Amino acid sequence: MTAQTKSNPGNYFEDFSIGMELVHATPQTVTEGDIALYRALTGNRYAQYSSAEFARAAGLPGLAIDPIHAFHVVFGKSVPDISLNAVANLGYADGRIRRPIMPGDTLNTVSEVIGMKENSNKRTGVVWVRTRGFNQNGIEVMSFVRWVMVNKWEEDSAVPPAHIPDLPEAVPGSELEGFAPMEDWDFALAGSPYGYEDYEIGEKINHVDGMTVEEAEHQIATRLYQNTAKVHFDAHGQKSSRFGKRLIYGGVVISIARSLAFNGLANAGQVLAINGGTHASPLFAGDTIYAWSEVLDKADLSDKAGALRLRLVAVKDQDPGAFAYKTGDGKYADGVLLDFDYWASIPKLSGR
Amino acid sequence: MTAQTKSNPGNYFEDFSIGMELVHATPQTVTEGDIALYRALTGNRYAQYSSAEFARAAGLPGLAIDPIHAFHVVFGKSVPDISLNAVANLGYADGRIRRPIMPGDTLNTVSEVIGMKENSNKRTGVVWVRTRGFNQNGIEVMSFVRWVMVNKWEEDSAVPPAHIPDLPEAVPGSELEGFAPMEDWDFALAGSPYGYEDYEIGEKINHVDGMTVEEAEHQIATRLYQNTAKVHFDAHGQKSSRFGKRLIYGGVVISIARSLAFNGLANAGQVLAINGGTHASPLFAGDTIYAWSEVLDKADLSDKAGALRLRLVAVKDQDPGAFAYKTGDGKYADGVLLDFDYWASIPKLSGR
Amino acid sequence: MTAQTKSNPGNYFEDFSIGMELVHATPQTVTEGDIALYRALTGNRYAQYSSAEFARAAGLPGLAIDPIHAFHVVFGKSVPDISLNAVANLGYADGRIRRPIMPGDTLNTVSEVIGMKENSNKRTGVVWVRTRGFNQNGIEVMSFVRWVMVNKWEEDSAVPPAHIPDLPEAVPGSELEGFAPMEDWDFALAGSPYGYEDYEIGEKINHVDGMTVEEAEHQIATRLYQNTAKVHFDAHGQKSSRFGKRLIYGGVVISIARSLAFNGLANAGQVLAINGGTHASPLFAGDTIYAWSEVLDKADLSDKAGALRLRLVAVKDQDPGAFAYKTGDGKYADGVLLDFDYWASIPKLSGR
Repeated sequence: MTAQTKSNPGNYFEDFSIGMELVHATPQTVTEGDIALYRALTGNRYAQYSSAEFARAAGLPGLAIDPIHAFHVVFGKSVPDISLNAVANLGYADGRIRRPIMPGDTLNTVSEVIGMKENSNKRTGVVWVRTRGFNQNGIEVMSFVRWVMVNKWEEDSAVPPAHIPDLPEAVPGSELEGFAPMEDWDFALAGSPYGYEDYEIGEKINHVDGMTVEEAEHQIATRLYQNTAKVHFDAHGQKSSRFGKRLIYGGVVISIARSLAFNGLANAGQVLAINGGTHASPLFAGDTIYAWSEVLDKADLSDKAGALRLRLVAVKDQDPGAFAYKTGDGKYADGVLLDFDYWASIPKLSGR
Repeated sequence: MTAQTKSNPGNYFEDFSIGMELVHATPQTVTEGDIALYRALTGNRYAQYSSAEFARAAGLPGLAIDPIHAFHVVFGKSVPDISLNAVANLGYADGRIRRPIMPGDTLNTVSEVIGMKENSNKRTGVVWVRTRGFNQNGIEVMSFVRWVMVNKWEEDSAVPPAHIPDLPEAVPGSELEGFAPMEDWDFALAGSPYGYEDYEIGEKINHVDGMTVEEAEHQIATRLYQNTAKVHFDAHGQKSSRFGKRLIYGGVVISIARSLAFNGLANAGQVLAINGGTHASPLFAGDTIYAWSEVLDKADLSDKAGALRLRLVAVKDQDPGAFAYKTGDGKYADGVLLDFDYWASIPKLSGR
Repeated sequence: MTAQTKSNPGNYFEDFSIGMELVHATPQTVTEGDIALYRALTGNRYAQYSSAEFARAAGLPGLAIDPIHAFHVVFGKSVPDISLNAVANLGYADGRIRRPIMPGDTLNTVSEVIGMKENSNKRTGVVWVRTRGFNQNGIEVMSFVRWVMVNKWEEDSAVPPAHIPDLPEAVPGSELEGFAPMEDWDFALAGSPYGYEDYEIGEKINHVDGMTVEEAEHQIATRLYQNTAKVHFDAHGQKSSRFGKRLIYGGVVISIARSLAFNGLANAGQVLAINGGTHASPLFAGDTIYAWSEVLDKADLSDKAGALRLRLVAVKDQDPGAFAYKTGDGKYADGVLLDFDYWASIPKLSGR
């Protein structure tokens, strides 16, 4: 009898095919315990994810799971099937948070392969999947596309013809859904007087504060989402890797940068869509994250609410007020960790 | 358009005025998730905050939030408005925990400026505030005074005449409220046979055990309370500070010292009042906290319950059985971290 | 008045007697907050402890506490009375998890001394206790025997005659109880297609993945269970100890090894019995845990479910695929941390 046969080898490029559906394991019930931990690990302060009363006044059913938190949970489920053998996580697109996720909800995750392309080196290929999160009633709560570079089993194996999916540059503002109606909104309790009308396209916001990440913190956070990618946990195994140490899960950077963004965007707590995201450079324990944002677009949602399309840039060990982004040749500047493009709802000042 | 204008600059001495009310942001719903985290971060074992059945037998509505935990939450809310530009947290006084805080309660915080005094250097001043915590029904659950030294915008700005509030040396025992009636109290389950009658004024108690604090632990704890003071989180920014590294939030020291105090004061779990507190020296990651207590006073509460006024002294990297406190010149001895004066209820042995 | 008299000195060999009952302090209500923390600290993914719906489909009342989590809580209560002065934790036997432990349950712990034997050096002795965990209704939820080497007060004190209890090598498969009926079991959601029939006695499984443990992580986990053994927390005090640093609680190794075992045993999530356990060598912060398992026995439970008796071996900083265990002389091989013998239920493939 052979050993190892019962452990999960993950999928390689040849194991995928267009249209293939992958039902991911370990559905996860998210609870108030998860909310407390997410706050403690990221510094989350957005009022609708901090106070049940504030959330209800805004029109949510109660104290909800932060959408980015739920995104990490849904993403985490897909790792053992999609990216266990990934060489790189290349990008996200067309992410839509369709409705609030509440304590007690159980998140189930299913992915469909929507694109494949072998690389010219024939040793790797790119796989595009649409990953959907459902609640315990089978209702879709979110959906996003991601693409990863995965290893092939063999260089000379036959592969299907390249198919690259059409992906929108951003979710159209007119398609945003699931936002709180914001009939009632207490700006003082939310932590900022600035509403929809105060933000202008092109405006940059320095979030000022910094947060240093320790090994224990990113490991605890990444396990909270049941993301088991080895590179985040196995210091011994990572000694022989390119960086020689554990890499911090990119979702940790997203969440901390979003929490830092409270300082300047306190009313823009509810993420509605993820238009794109690039992890420009790796984060390691001991590094300090800072962040700045740029307003890319605005969308009218209702009489009471609008949405901001924001570029959130996380940088490492440097003043975010320098607004480091890209150099002349289009490459990311030194120390840029994350380039994250998303929509968030924000109350209007008018009509209150 | 200018950057940074939407981030919170905090308040400087000139921004305050006597009688000014500050409504603090990000009300926080505390849950069983917070209780689990508080226990895991501090080692809290007081039975009425560990067991729902023990709590109900003692006359509490159920498994409650430890009052010191709630104090950190209320305190944390006030940081962005009161002490973001603080040079030093100088003291606490007249703190009263008025009623139990239960899972599901949402804590709102409001402060009133009750004192101001410019320092002779004209670059800083002291501001006294009374901070009140309310639950979701608008009922005051706690109240305390604290004072901080804050920077001035300008040396030659006009300032109001000095006004220093009258503060009690301690909350009178006769004014303690919100304590569990303790009709039923199982001393074995609480972890100690010693009741009200066993403690004598002047008695010192060595709590023996030590607890080392890691960077990840104090950061997670401080974020649990949504306290965002930069000095606790930003290792990069702190490199150029006086100590060159992150400082641990004083509330972490209070909570761990209180947890260590279980060993000798297991029945005195419910804090009713905070008479005063001084953070005598800073704590850094890697340091080990030990604690000892002195009984300062006793107060009769009912046939079943009394209260002890206790001085809790936390020391660093040394035997707490040496009872280090102050030197001949009235200064704190080397290694003293915390001098915390409080009232806690304790069951009587008589009449059981 | 003397200091220190109110702190707990723990029990020494002479303080124990056969038949003595010890009611342990600080009953603990376990909640959804504890479940979230346990997952975040260990990486637990077994579906019946991750999803409320999966748990109910399997026949559990809902999202339950992982039995090993509950074991640590019950064990932790016994530390101040049984092993505060322990020189070594020598072993476990006859552990039975009798029924599911649910959020909201309060765990009470009582131990009975069932064996004592002075060592030939007359400075230490071995004490055997049976520790029982009860829920808030007084119903026994688990029971196990453990034995520890404790110090004596004095070399020449009189001791009772040696009494060594009869302990089973393993809980008989026919006596397993409390398992979920598994009428409905979704193998895809559980994360593995392998059921009862797929595992053969003698089969070894390489769990592949590794997890590095940081000081903050093991301290947070150990406090979650209210285990207060000084060696895990007091870096200053440990400087003068044999290893010169903090030791990681053995329960942390058990839980992480069990979580790693998901990769190969995903359907064997519910631990029913602990037959034995040896902590072969200490774990320190920064070490990486890997694990492998061997199927020791199988037991028929019902038409839908069986049980596997498994040896779980945790190793440090080495490939678990080498299946390191014991050397020719019967001693544990270098790097072996844990030898843990237990029963877990697993669904049958037949009849679905």
